[in-house]
Amino acid sequence: MTLILGLDIGGTKSAAVLGDHTGRVLARESGPTPQGPWPESVAFLMGLLHAVRPNAEPVTALGVSCGGPLDSQTGIVHAPPNLPHWDGVPLRALLEAEFHLPVWVENDANATALAEHQWGAGQGTRDMAFLTMGTGIGAGLILNNQLYRGRHDLAGEIGHATILPNGPPCLCGKRGCLETLASGTAIGRMGRERTGEPALTAHDICARARAGDPIAQGILAEAAWHMGIGLANLLQTLNLERIVLGTLAVQAGDLLLEPIRASAQAHCWPRVWDGVSIVPAALGNAAQDMAALAVARFARADISSPPQEHGTRTRV
Amino acid sequence: MTLILGLDIGGTKSAAVLGDHTGRVLARESGPTPQGPWPESVAFLMGLLHAVRPNAEPVTALGVSCGGPLDSQTGIVHAPPNLPHWDGVPLRALLEAEFHLPVWVENDANATALAEHQWGAGQGTRDMAFLTMGTGIGAGLILNNQLYRGRHDLAGEIGHATILPNGPPCLCGKRGCLETLASGTAIGRMGRERTGEPALTAHDICARARAGDPIAQGILAEAAWHMGIGLANLLQTLNLERIVLGTLAVQAGDLLLEPIRASAQAHCWPRVWDGVSIVPAALGNAAQDMAALAVARFARADISSPPQEHGTRTRV
Repeated sequence: MTLILGLDIGGTKSAAVLGDHTGRVLARESGPTPQGPWPESVAFLMGLLHAVRPNAEPVTALGVSCGGPLDSQTGIVHAPPNLPHWDGVPLRALLEAEFHLPVWVENDANATALAEHQWGAGQGTRDMAFLTMGTGIGAGLILNNQLYRGRHDLAGEIGHATILPNGPPCLCGKRGCLETLASGTAIGRMGRERTGEPALTAHDICARARAGDPIAQGILAEAAWHMGIGLANLLQTLNLERIVLGTLAVQAGDLLLEPIRASAQAHCWPRVWDGVSIVPAALGNAAQDMAALAVARFARADISSPPQEHGTRTRV
Repeated sequence: MTLILGLDIGGTKSAAVLGDHTGRVLARESGPTPQGPWPESVAFLMGLLHAVRPNAEPVTALGVSCGGPLDSQTGIVHAPPNLPHWDGVPLRALLEAEFHLPVWVENDANATALAEHQWGAGQGTRDMAFLTMGTGIGAGLILNNQLYRGRHDLAGEIGHATILPNGPPCLCGKRGCLETLASGTAIGRMGRERTGEPALTAHDICARARAGDPIAQGILAEAAWHMGIGLANLLQTLNLERIVLGTLAVQAGDLLLEPIRASAQAHCWPRVWDGVSIVPAALGNAAQDMAALAVARFARADISSPPQEHGTRTRV
């Protein structure tokens, strides 16, 4: 059995996992990501990895899933919004020096796209997208069975595609971005604005919509309409076979998926829509762990030059 | 010297060319595409090809550039708008039987993207798009140095991405499609609507704008603004390095390109915009011929299985 290591670095929590080539998690250590200077966080993460790394069996690679922006070629992480002290951290080099393993680093949307494509709701497709629909909206693209990253690992940033040119202002400085119209954050904000209840979240809106509340139903209808436009534009651009939606779409299920599908269909050519499936992500609570393992296993499957030789030493 | 054949099938005119592996045209025959039943058109096109095919020297492949929709795997052409009698024509099989050569068929936007990438304004890029901006708007996508076609050869149909959700109706049945806001057709229509002059074209609008006419300048500003949104959404989705614009953008030059660039930049993340160039197509009047030759030369460079063996017989 070939073993791989995965490291999921979140803004609040992180986890190290030991797994096999099928994505099965064999050991796991997690804890809150330290919010101080980055050397402290990296030392903490290395501790998690040491705790799951086997003493005797060889490990072939280490995959890291982390919020972007980051450079997947060099493995340098540039100031993710949730890790403000992480500007220019040479994560790949640090981990390679510590663990003597080939290390690959991918942003979390791309990592999850790999995991859903290989082990989850995207299995068997050639051209697909995975989208988060939580705090923000971001996509990972699998095109011709390969992760497509774009020039600076920024492919799939459709949360900041313009859907309503004169729409509400977005935190990014533009107006009418998909993220400001259809993310979990946007749904929560619309709920608070329209009810005056200051603590309302996207979860609450979904629960109320399910119970028949017309204000909550209106908010979900509006968000789904805009999300459908964003997905239709993605389909017109890439002629995908499947779109896998995570986070809120998984929690809300058909309450959100059905109107999203209807809007996407209405905004697509029939020939482009033909045979497309828009489905919830399948990996559930294991998604983050499996995303990191998928990076170890598949991230560089499309790179024609072989990975740098590091051997497969175990910890001494 | 290795010789290749190209066939460019247009709605009104078609041409057969003999060329070499650098895209140089060595012989050319053209004529109006017959508008009757398809067997007549195909016989005419075969005649053009026979006229340029050398008697003695071997030819290695035949590339066809044709309006879509079509299936590039089977080489079957499905009812292009400009060739209404061409529903389900097995063009690849017919040409292979006639010429005993490997034949590849691509839609014209994809074929031109290949030609601009290899021989024109896209040289040296890994991730780029070529867009027509004439009667309609359509893109050919080169991603990771390969032509990206999507599931049914419909990738790049961003002329029917939604830019203004409640915008003017499009011929496709949707509203606010990029094509209905920023194509040459749209610019001409806006000109006629706003002046009451029934014969005004996009060319006339460009000429008047250049001469200082404020109505014409306003129309171009509006079209460029919307085109910039469409390109920015493409850049946010694919993190491209370059966008090559054809047809009207080539004719109008910076009169149209400068406001398009400004709008694209305004609708992109700075990090996505960083280093992007939006440039006019470089192949000029030779573009259609070279597009067909590029299909013969490069269309299947990304297909791992070798092309079917046909030999390289010359005409007997």
